[in-house]
Amino acid sequence: MDNFQIVYSGWDPEEQKLREALCTLGNGYIATRGAAEESKDSKNNYPGTYLAGGYNRAKSNIADKEIENEDLVNFPNWLYLNFRPESGSWLNLDECEVQDYQQVLDMESGILSRSFVIEDSEGRKSKIESRRLVSMRDMHNAALEWILTPLNWSGSIEIVSELDGNITNNGVERYRDLESRHLDVLSTQELKDGISLTVQTNQTQLVMAQAARTTLFDGNHKLEVDTKTISNKKSIAQHFFLNAKEGISVRAEKIVSIYTSRDKAISEPSLEASENIAFAPLFDQLLKRHRQAWNRLWKQADIQLDNGAKTQRLARLHVFHILQTASPNSVGLDIGIPARGWHGEAYRGHIFWDELFITPFYNLRFPDIAKSLLMYRYYRLEKARHAAKEAGLRGALYPWQSGSNGREESQKIHLNPQSGNWLPDHTYLQYHVNAAIAYNIWNYYKATGDHEFLSCFGAEIFLSIASFWGSKAEFDTDKGRYVFLQVVGPDEYHTSYPDSDQQGLNNNAYTNVFAAWVLQMALDILDLLENPTAERLLQRLEIDEDELLLWKDIGTKIYLPFLDGEVISQFEGYEDLEEFPWEEYRKKYDNIQ
Amino acid sequence: MDNFQIVYSGWDPEEQKLREALCTLGNGYIATRGAAEESKDSKNNYPGTYLAGGYNRAKSNIADKEIENEDLVNFPNWLYLNFRPESGSWLNLDECEVQDYQQVLDMESGILSRSFVIEDSEGRKSKIESRRLVSMRDMHNAALEWILTPLNWSGSIEIVSELDGNITNNGVERYRDLESRHLDVLSTQELKDGISLTVQTNQTQLVMAQAARTTLFDGNHKLEVDTKTISNKKSIAQHFFLNAKEGISVRAEKIVSIYTSRDKAISEPSLEASENIAFAPLFDQLLKRHRQAWNRLWKQADIQLDNGAKTQRLARLHVFHILQTASPNSVGLDIGIPARGWHGEAYRGHIFWDELFITPFYNLRFPDIAKSLLMYRYYRLEKARHAAKEAGLRGALYPWQSGSNGREESQKIHLNPQSGNWLPDHTYLQYHVNAAIAYNIWNYYKATGDHEFLSCFGAEIFLSIASFWGSKAEFDTDKGRYVFLQVVGPDEYHTSYPDSDQQGLNNNAYTNVFAAWVLQMALDILDLLENPTAERLLQRLEIDEDELLLWKDIGTKIYLPFLDGEVISQFEGYEDLEEFPWEEYRKKYDNIQ
Repeated sequence: MDNFQIVYSGWDPEEQKLREALCTLGNGYIATRGAAEESKDSKNNYPGTYLAGGYNRAKSNIADKEIENEDLVNFPNWLYLNFRPESGSWLNLDECEVQDYQQVLDMESGILSRSFVIEDSEGRKSKIESRRLVSMRDMHNAALEWILTPLNWSGSIEIVSELDGNITNNGVERYRDLESRHLDVLSTQELKDGISLTVQTNQTQLVMAQAARTTLFDGNHKLEVDTKTISNKKSIAQHFFLNAKEGISVRAEKIVSIYTSRDKAISEPSLEASENIAFAPLFDQLLKRHRQAWNRLWKQADIQLDNGAKTQRLARLHVFHILQTASPNSVGLDIGIPARGWHGEAYRGHIFWDELFITPFYNLRFPDIAKSLLMYRYYRLEKARHAAKEAGLRGALYPWQSGSNGREESQKIHLNPQSGNWLPDHTYLQYHVNAAIAYNIWNYYKATGDHEFLSCFGAEIFLSIASFWGSKAEFDTDKGRYVFLQVVGPDEYHTSYPDSDQQGLNNNAYTNVFAAWVLQMALDILDLLENPTAERLLQRLEIDEDELLLWKDIGTKIYLPFLDGEVISQFEGYEDLEEFPWEEYRKKYDNIQ
Repeated sequence: MDNFQIVYSGWDPEEQKLREALCTLGNGYIATRGAAEESKDSKNNYPGTYLAGGYNRAKSNIADKEIENEDLVNFPNWLYLNFRPESGSWLNLDECEVQDYQQVLDMESGILSRSFVIEDSEGRKSKIESRRLVSMRDMHNAALEWILTPLNWSGSIEIVSELDGNITNNGVERYRDLESRHLDVLSTQELKDGISLTVQTNQTQLVMAQAARTTLFDGNHKLEVDTKTISNKKSIAQHFFLNAKEGISVRAEKIVSIYTSRDKAISEPSLEASENIAFAPLFDQLLKRHRQAWNRLWKQADIQLDNGAKTQRLARLHVFHILQTASPNSVGLDIGIPARGWHGEAYRGHIFWDELFITPFYNLRFPDIAKSLLMYRYYRLEKARHAAKEAGLRGALYPWQSGSNGREESQKIHLNPQSGNWLPDHTYLQYHVNAAIAYNIWNYYKATGDHEFLSCFGAEIFLSIASFWGSKAEFDTDKGRYVFLQVVGPDEYHTSYPDSDQQGLNNNAYTNVFAAWVLQMALDILDLLENPTAERLLQRLEIDEDELLLWKDIGTKIYLPFLDGEVISQFEGYEDLEEFPWEEYRKKYDNIQ
């Protein structure tokens, strides 16, 4: 089962944040970065826990303008667990000698484990072994196990287990000038069996409650030790005081329940979290159930390749992270596929066009997840209609970046991290997402034959998008063809012409071809629907016979720019651009990435 | 289309609350009682707006005990619209002469209209005509139209349009000793186009925002009049000042947007409500779309009968209210079928066994709604497992009364409204709901062939329920049969034996037969699932071969009580009960209902 494991040998502080992202554990509902249990936000560490679709908006003043961004919120850190010997410091890998460090991401079972020996300034050597999971079976539960073995010392120690709500969105360097405070802590509470923390996002008013039950064991025997609960305004922690003996392991289990105000079947989140933690089983039992769930998923999900262990492992890494982003737990959660999973804050957790590449996988293996992802778009159809209206167009115009409610979340101005300048951002003109969404509907239908989805939801989105493209097209009498002007294609490095005030480019080939496909296919979909479904839909969407004829015409008379009449040009006028001054830039900047 | 109309002629204050319930308009997401627009909670009027599944818990001190009840919350009243002539009083049908009163519930289009003439103490006669809808098409919108015509006078008038958050749960007389305050008003706001009010339930923390845009028209010409917005802590109102002329009608349109924190595709409710109301169309357009939606529903829903107009109308009244309770808008809302719809506060909006009678209708006509109602149970399976565990039994024990999170919501003590005594309430022993739920799953599967639902969700519920019944059964060696002791059957008037401390009755025939059916059918369902699905499910639910053999045995050896060996007895010992002292009670109380 080697090809299910990612193994990191040796402690490499510089690489830690990358490892955190790649070792994220998630279950399609929550995701937690693979940060060290004992770490807090610092130079080399960035613990992050994200809720699928858990967004919040904040306003920042930049360059004398107020801008608003919607972020994927970093919620409280449930991981934190640490220890110190009496008179010693809390464990911090950046401040002590680390030996035999090994970290393993076991993708087969969705378990992240770490093992290492540390030696502190007083020569005390201790071994730490940890395992953790974010349960695929019990979606509200996460858990970790920590085994501490003093190798050459005995003495009294303190173990701390915290729920830390003192969290900001601080994961992406280029966003650091922007407002990053998204959470208010509503309450901390000592429970019969542990502790709980409840927070609320300060704009979307999304509540998340976390409850934690931490238990110490000597083997399988529960240790009764002195315990103190300390809470401050933003966090709550249990401190355990005990004597550690050379060569004898102390095992800590931290079981966590997470509920939010968006959940089904709840009274209110903090009540559910407390009740759940009272019933939650021990680590081993949770692990067993979690393993079974991953086992079932892999039976449906595994892609086996012939070309070597590394490729095989990489394919599984992709499948693993995709399933952690949208799993059977995600069905009905009203989420889309974010550009980087729920694994961090880059791209703000927004939904771009990535479904285009990922839904073919779900269509065949997990059609219910694919459908749920498409429903994310359906529920935002009204907003897309408003966007089309505001652009003076018909139908539905889905945003390039979509988040909570489906408005355009693309930034209006964008920081060039090299120059430090804020520049206008035209990337929202990537209307081609409106071909991708239509394509995903068609592809889902082809794979599943789900005619009910097509009739009730899919066709409405598809025709609304077609209506947008139909109204966006212009007939160019010189060319004798239809053109799409002022758009941006998938190449985000070209968003306008030099020395031109025009936003966007004309006749991006990808966009033109794909839009024409949508318009042709819309007519085929109408044929697929039985009457009176088709007629009623056209009536509701106010699409008349003339509009259908227009679609047909555009579908066969779309303009395509060519270089020398043979090679399709990326967009009209591409051939007139000057070559990029590669040498000049290579001289000016070491790395021109 | 007479058979789609309920017509009330004449103003009958005594009958008003019944009319309010029967004239409730809803769309499977929200429901608003048919109270007069100009009325507030009073002797004859009880405006109520309810959210499907919108519950809140409150504690009350009764008979020295603290009891907690979960109520369906009465949310702010969006209806309120009233007028007064200068120096006159606000319209109140209880205080003026009412002529030509007619109220029509048009079930074909989901429209409630009223028309009447009033004469005030100064002899001013005015005609009022109103129409309203809760949009089946645009689920976040409701709207009303009010036409005022001064018949014999002219003068300045004031019209008020309010969103009233000064609301308690006050609809059921017998609950009035209980805590009835469920709402905190979070904010009132004056919008560019109107007003908004945001409230939050004080325990479940469910947020509802309402925004209203009120516009006055002279025919189709918008009237620009003096307007003043007045808000206090719990409500906000727009006041319009204008001159009315004899014989000239003034038409007011009030368009309302309602969003809650449970909605999909939202940033936060008050933002969505304000944005929606800015885009919402005029009354006529909303009405047109609403009509189209009802038209489509009736095409699938209508039940046509041959035995007379009255029966036909009644059948439609039932279908109409069922569809207002759970409609295509309800799919995915995590709601069940409440005993009295979302039409008022009786039964607290709880979910009993009513699905048993109603899902056969949905199964054939709206299978997606039926499935969504079953998913309400699936999401509460974990709570049902806890309940079984706490009762010392296996599997899943669903509650007799289910609400927000699926715990047992039946009262522990119950007020006898006649004697004023609080008595222990054993009705929670109606475990037979756990046969009804299983039956609904089977029935849905039979009607739809939805094997995916059965494999992923239905079978898990069904087998968990079977496991409960299997562990509840006891083998009576004297009888040579299995018995179910201490249960309550559907006859809620018999919940224990006289002069016995035992809660519940033994061997209720309905329960025994139905439970045996569940146990037999569970085995059939296992046969229907392909392996390895069946095996994996048994493994997950920890059901072994012995347990399956036990089910088979119980299924064929259930005890049934008989009267004289021929007629099935309602329960064991029924024949030993004394006859009810009918005469004595008839003498003591006029009405022994």
